[in-house]
Amino acid sequence: MSQSAPDNVPAEVYRYSYHMGFGDCDPAGIAYTGALVNAALRAIDRFLGDVTAGRGWYAMSVSLGAGMPFAHLDVDFVSPVRGDADLDFTVEVTRLGQTSIGFRATGWQRSEACFSLNSVNVFISRGEGKQPLPDWLRAALAPYLA
Amino acid sequence: MSQSAPDNVPAEVYRYSYHMGFGDCDPAGIAYTGALVNAALRAIDRFLGDVTAGRGWYAMSVSLGAGMPFAHLDVDFVSPVRGDADLDFTVEVTRLGQTSIGFRATGWQRSEACFSLNSVNVFISRGEGKQPLPDWLRAALAPYLA
Amino acid sequence: MSQSAPDNVPAEVYRYSYHMGFGDCDPAGIAYTGALVNAALRAIDRFLGDVTAGRGWYAMSVSLGAGMPFAHLDVDFVSPVRGDADLDFTVEVTRLGQTSIGFRATGWQRSEACFSLNSVNVFISRGEGKQPLPDWLRAALAPYLA
Amino acid sequence: MSQSAPDNVPAEVYRYSYHMGFGDCDPAGIAYTGALVNAALRAIDRFLGDVTAGRGWYAMSVSLGAGMPFAHLDVDFVSPVRGDADLDFTVEVTRLGQTSIGFRATGWQRSEACFSLNSVNVFISRGEGKQPLPDWLRAALAPYLA
Repeated sequence: MSQSAPDNVPAEVYRYSYHMGFGDCDPAGIAYTGALVNAALRAIDRFLGDVTAGRGWYAMSVSLGAGMPFAHLDVDFVSPVRGDADLDFTVEVTRLGQTSIGFRATGWQRSEACFSLNSVNVFISRGEGKQPLPDWLRAALAPYLA
Repeated sequence: MSQSAPDNVPAEVYRYSYHMGFGDCDPAGIAYTGALVNAALRAIDRFLGDVTAGRGWYAMSVSLGAGMPFAHLDVDFVSPVRGDADLDFTVEVTRLGQTSIGFRATGWQRSEACFSLNSVNVFISRGEGKQPLPDWLRAALAPYLA
Repeated sequence: MSQSAPDNVPAEVYRYSYHMGFGDCDPAGIAYTGALVNAALRAIDRFLGDVTAGRGWYAMSVSLGAGMPFAHLDVDFVSPVRGDADLDFTVEVTRLGQTSIGFRATGWQRSEACFSLNSVNVFISRGEGKQPLPDWLRAALAPYLA
Repeated sequence: MSQSAPDNVPAEVYRYSYHMGFGDCDPAGIAYTGALVNAALRAIDRFLGDVTAGRGWYAMSVSLGAGMPFAHLDVDFVSPVRGDADLDFTVEVTRLGQTSIGFRATGWQRSEACFSLNSVNVFISRGEGKQPLPDWLRAALAPYLA
């Protein structure tokens, strides 16, 4: 991470720095809403891969016959995201259910929370639908439970 | 699980057909969540441009000194979106407030509603923040108010 | 600068209309280069799916154990692509080799050719590398050979 | 940069690590061609912003009344890009002309060059077309000239 992260979040929060690009910005000169949602998904993707030693969405799908489809997401936008600074994410786990997980990815610029995405994802085994979270996944996520 | 089919929605609902592409799909063989959100934003973008005779997001930003930033969006995902069929959107206006607008874009495949995105957008004039919706915009959107 | 208009191209040229969106445009108010490349790939994707009765990139990958990876692409940009008009593509086949295919997707606005993407794609069978083009693919593409 | 960069490239080469994501990958389980082109553009964007102390594409467009539109790009793809490893770019300047610049962004995984994008960009002043490269830009890029 190239920039100091906001210091009012707990130590166990995962941090990810997204490299804002010219192509993420729209004619209004700020980041396009769709680019922000994609950046937040990328932060969650990275978090998951990092805390599970590589058993994130890609490995789940390609190697493990599993997946974590989104059942829901919502985003509150507080202030515009500039195109000339990185977007520092904090990622937390908001819920560890029997078969589902809640994530929150908050995008910060200059110590200000610009927007926050909350999701509900369901753990599935391919061809068998919803499954209880495996122990390795629950253990990896537990330290980040808000 | 299936909701009412597109043929059963009122005549004043706007329809937009998104061309699903290989690049929209992820290693699980279905449309990536971020691609779906972007497709729904594109449907709203198109709707707005069409019903206002070209005074949509692009013209607002580039020619009219205005904008409609997102204050909120939420998405409920009901069933996976396949990569081998188009994604047919219906777009409705869910709210016409003093300075804000609610949109709903629902993505359909084979007469089944796969997901629905709801947004709250605020009308702004550049450098002056929130503004009452101009008459031309209110008049253009009113017929699509659900 | 303007090349021959779309009405002057042969009848066997495939046409695809890409819906330009606000999110495709950058702070300069024109379409971002990366969005243009993606739009041209989408035009080729659509062309391939349409002329093969659905055996395009998605079906090749998911159902047929095949693929058409890019070996090369090049793009010449002639004039900026505006954000307030659709981008009309013509797609042609420039080469039908033993194991490879050349495509050209040209993006037009207001009867002017804005840019042209040329590609070389190789036909592969999964796990076996390059393969001769199957007859059904060669037959589907032949009418579009420039 | 999170990972060691390939060590057979010259010291003056700029390095950028792109965080490969699940959404960059297609149903074949490898990075989608369009995502790779976008990643390479992002590497050039980052390079330019870094070596000019922030006067990259975004600042040029939003603050400096300038721009660097693409006149040409070409890409040679050598080997597929995996979804479970970062994509490490090296960026070089291949040409410093009177009004144009050549860039090369090469994407590496595990010390192997997977693909290489070459571009020709023209420096423009808004409303006045092509301009000689300003001294600050030429000086910033010269050390990276291959």
